[in-house]
Amino acid sequence: MVAQETFSIQTRGRETVNITHQITSLVDQSGIHSGICQLFLRHTSASLILCENADPDVRSDLERYLSRLVKDGDSIFQHTMEGPDDMSAHIRTILTHSDLSLPISNGRLALGTWQGIYLWEHRTHPHNRQVMVTLIGE
Amino acid sequence: MVAQETFSIQTRGRETVNITHQITSLVDQSGIHSGICQLFLRHTSASLILCENADPDVRSDLERYLSRLVKDGDSIFQHTMEGPDDMSAHIRTILTHSDLSLPISNGRLALGTWQGIYLWEHRTHPHNRQVMVTLIGE
Amino acid sequence: MVAQETFSIQTRGRETVNITHQITSLVDQSGIHSGICQLFLRHTSASLILCENADPDVRSDLERYLSRLVKDGDSIFQHTMEGPDDMSAHIRTILTHSDLSLPISNGRLALGTWQGIYLWEHRTHPHNRQVMVTLIGE
Repeated sequence: MVAQETFSIQTRGRETVNITHQITSLVDQSGIHSGICQLFLRHTSASLILCENADPDVRSDLERYLSRLVKDGDSIFQHTMEGPDDMSAHIRTILTHSDLSLPISNGRLALGTWQGIYLWEHRTHPHNRQVMVTLIGE
Repeated sequence: MVAQETFSIQTRGRETVNITHQITSLVDQSGIHSGICQLFLRHTSASLILCENADPDVRSDLERYLSRLVKDGDSIFQHTMEGPDDMSAHIRTILTHSDLSLPISNGRLALGTWQGIYLWEHRTHPHNRQVMVTLIGE
Repeated sequence: MVAQETFSIQTRGRETVNITHQITSLVDQSGIHSGICQLFLRHTSASLILCENADPDVRSDLERYLSRLVKDGDSIFQHTMEGPDDMSAHIRTILTHSDLSLPISNGRLALGTWQGIYLWEHRTHPHNRQVMVTLIGE
């Protein structure tokens, strides 16, 4: 059995958006008992991550860390036409994930207690991002 | 056909643990000829990686590299309640992988000759880690 | 329905090779309408990435960034027998991806407009790399 759905997230610029609830709902509706829930982000400057879901400081620390590791406007970048956050956004995406593959077990998304699913916008301006969800199982 | 199994690994603190044998055994037992073996770690401070499996120096170099890249107790971290290795463990996890998706071919896990599957504990204290394995195919 | 195919890419040393066309062709031929296209690279010193596909500067910036982040011949490396690019290649692989899981929708690979699939050779000498493609769906 295969089910597929796409939804959009409007971001407000660089930020993490919790999308766990959208994904668990799709799994609940699918009627799949055991299988795989595959998430895919159709963009090259935003990511999908699993992150600790209890303390918001984790995500602000993460953002602070990554923006120091991958500096906007780094002088080695030649791809700068769309601004200082463009090339850094591509690198941030490649160092993290565009796809996530999660287990479905007993009809539920089998996340760990502390795992939340986040869309991470890497551009500083707002963007509309499409997440495609494919559920396969029986 | 879908098969699913969860197993636990007791880590001794920060280290890499070879779990290749557990995964190949599950594939062998499943009776699936062609398909996907999806691994999922239900935690936010440990990773699943594919790494060179012959020279243990590779994994000690990797640990040395990553602990320099993501410093325990970095002064930019505000999420510090559980100690200096807590936030760094979350970042190390996001820079690597919580899920791995591997092909099953001719009834076997189709790893390359030098690929081993490792659970990478990022916390300095021992933890019990759950790996969920979902096999889909025919 | 499961379809599986392996193809080889001969690299000329450290470079990115666009393999999008090979993958979309396999999806087109498979007859699968909805499902997952899973890519797997059977090596520990080359990666699969999704990257912006329009401006080649993105990939040269990416290479410049990563070779500064993970220095060939870093003095902390003990795994050096195969040369200064050996251990750095393993690290570059683990910081990026050996597997990619992509959605198939309406019989086509559902990449975003700007997403290309690239094999990223991390060794400085030419290598023959095997990509295994597993398509599951209905």
